Amino acid sequence: MTNSKLSVISKPIKNELLQFSDIFKDSLKSKVPLVDLITRYIMKQKGKRIRPLLVLLSGKINGEVTERTFRGAVLVEMLHTATLVHDDVVDNSDKRRGFPSINAIWKNKVSVLMGDYLLSKGLLISVEGKDFDFLQTITHTVKRISEGELLQIQKTKKLDIDEVTYFKIISDKTASLIGTCCEIGCLSTTENAERISAMKKYGEYLGLAFQIRDDILDFEGVTKLFGKPIGGDIKEKKMTLPLIHALSNVDKSEANKVKKLIKADKKENVAKVIDFVKQNRGLEYAKERATQIAENAKSELKIFPDSPSKESLINLVDFVLERNS
Amino acid sequence: MTNSKLSVISKPIKNELLQFSDIFKDSLKSKVPLVDLITRYIMKQKGKRIRPLLVLLSGKINGEVTERTFRGAVLVEMLHTATLVHDDVVDNSDKRRGFPSINAIWKNKVSVLMGDYLLSKGLLISVEGKDFDFLQTITHTVKRISEGELLQIQKTKKLDIDEVTYFKIISDKTASLIGTCCEIGCLSTTENAERISAMKKYGEYLGLAFQIRDDILDFEGVTKLFGKPIGGDIKEKKMTLPLIHALSNVDKSEANKVKKLIKADKKENVAKVIDFVKQNRGLEYAKERATQIAENAKSELKIFPDSPSKESLINLVDFVLERNS
Repeated sequence: MTNSKLSVISKPIKNELLQFSDIFKDSLKSKVPLVDLITRYIMKQKGKRIRPLLVLLSGKINGEVTERTFRGAVLVEMLHTATLVHDDVVDNSDKRRGFPSINAIWKNKVSVLMGDYLLSKGLLISVEGKDFDFLQTITHTVKRISEGELLQIQKTKKLDIDEVTYFKIISDKTASLIGTCCEIGCLSTTENAERISAMKKYGEYLGLAFQIRDDILDFEGVTKLFGKPIGGDIKEKKMTLPLIHALSNVDKSEANKVKKLIKADKKENVAKVIDFVKQNRGLEYAKERATQIAENAKSELKIFPDSPSKESLINLVDFVLERNS
Repeated sequence: MTNSKLSVISKPIKNELLQFSDIFKDSLKSKVPLVDLITRYIMKQKGKRIRPLLVLLSGKINGEVTERTFRGAVLVEMLHTATLVHDDVVDNSDKRRGFPSINAIWKNKVSVLMGDYLLSKGLLISVEGKDFDFLQTITHTVKRISEGELLQIQKTKKLDIDEVTYFKIISDKTASLIGTCCEIGCLSTTENAERISAMKKYGEYLGLAFQIRDDILDFEGVTKLFGKPIGGDIKEKKMTLPLIHALSNVDKSEANKVKKLIKADKKENVAKVIDFVKQNRGLEYAKERATQIAENAKSELKIFPDSPSKESLINLVDFVLERNS
């Protein structure tokens, strides 16, 4: 069901997505066989390609996409892939499943270098296309992503993330790139500053809603659909909105008890913490906030004339909010 | 003695280097405390700063350095630091010595993110300064560095690096950034294409000579001065010019015997391999090649009028060739 919804959303740019797929594949080619080997591995594991989808829709909303729109889509997908490859350095055991040779033989060194390669390759395409406006936004975003992740690591150690810090972290590590996708798409087909700014804001709100939904699913997702075990964030001592809100609803001594459960790092405590969050309105609150932010996203689109691309961007907000995987 | 030679070479840009130091420190500031903590750790371990030195001399050779020259120096040093931090992911046990807390607590995750942060921060400074000519060369270089390292990893597994491949690898992973330093410095103070091209070539030759000298020192360096144990490359099965040439000087069966010694991964074999290289003209040949390449570097400087900066760049070639650490 999820995929059929996404294919309805993709309809206005169906041909463009196919074209993108070819261009992306070509862009990844390298003279170094090891690079090509890993590239093929990456291509097999391609995800939903939400980011290129956003670039293409945000470009088409102003009329027709251009070569610049495609270059923008390649840039963000390359960058996103680079961050995934770098993430593998930490979580390599699961994420490289099915490809034991690469992981077993080269491990971290190759992951780091491949990430650097993909990042620079993406930037190089923008440099060669003289898309300096893309570079302006994307380098700022790469910095925000790494700062956001480092802030999260720092705060996670102490279990002291409040709602303001939570929003700062997810804004930097998730929403910034989604916002940049929409900004780049829009930039590629218009010079209208009001439109570009609205589209960027739309993307940032969408990214926030996406991350909050992701954090809710960690509490109530169906493992089979969601693809990763429930309670993973608690196990990793990551404080997300449902937990943060539930903790703010009880007195200090009870909050400290729950924090102790988390710190104790015992398997049986995970279910207890999930129960605590459910009983203290953590999930309802997070859903309310996600819905409210999703409405903000839709509002930003009001200045655009009606079109199939605009409709898809509106539907994408609901898709993000309702998704179970 | 080494340092006093370097301070003579630095003389024409003594004040500029001090200014650079302040600007670099300022550029590294972040609102995320963890980033600042690691930054201070990096600043304590600062090396010889050969790369900013090259940018400043290559800028001053055309007259006076400008703000753009400083931004270029910050860019290359930031990028070089990023690659060092990423290297830590593999060699963290030694390189973080003296700073157990950062390494022990956060390890790879933080190294990767800090590297990404430094890389994007450097690029961002260029983007904000509208130094698009710097971006053109530097993104190409980042790609070459990661491709060069990946090619080395791939070839190292099979011990099948010939001289051509060796030069391709060191050209990509070492010489490209040195060449870019000189190109950026020159770009910052002139639009003369002949000068810019000559300065880039000078840097690439210098980088090759630097790396060959480094590889020679792995065979004959004095541990105390060189700072790392002799024979490290053999232990890591890295094939460098002295070994490659020595192998090409004997018949196939003897070469295979030596390769077996290397593959066996035994401590006592390292001395045997070093002896083999010495007896088969490996070191003489590598020194001859380094000297010849160093002459090429100097030749590129002929088109520049005499000046203290030019003299320093010439002396730097000899410094690289003669260094023992």
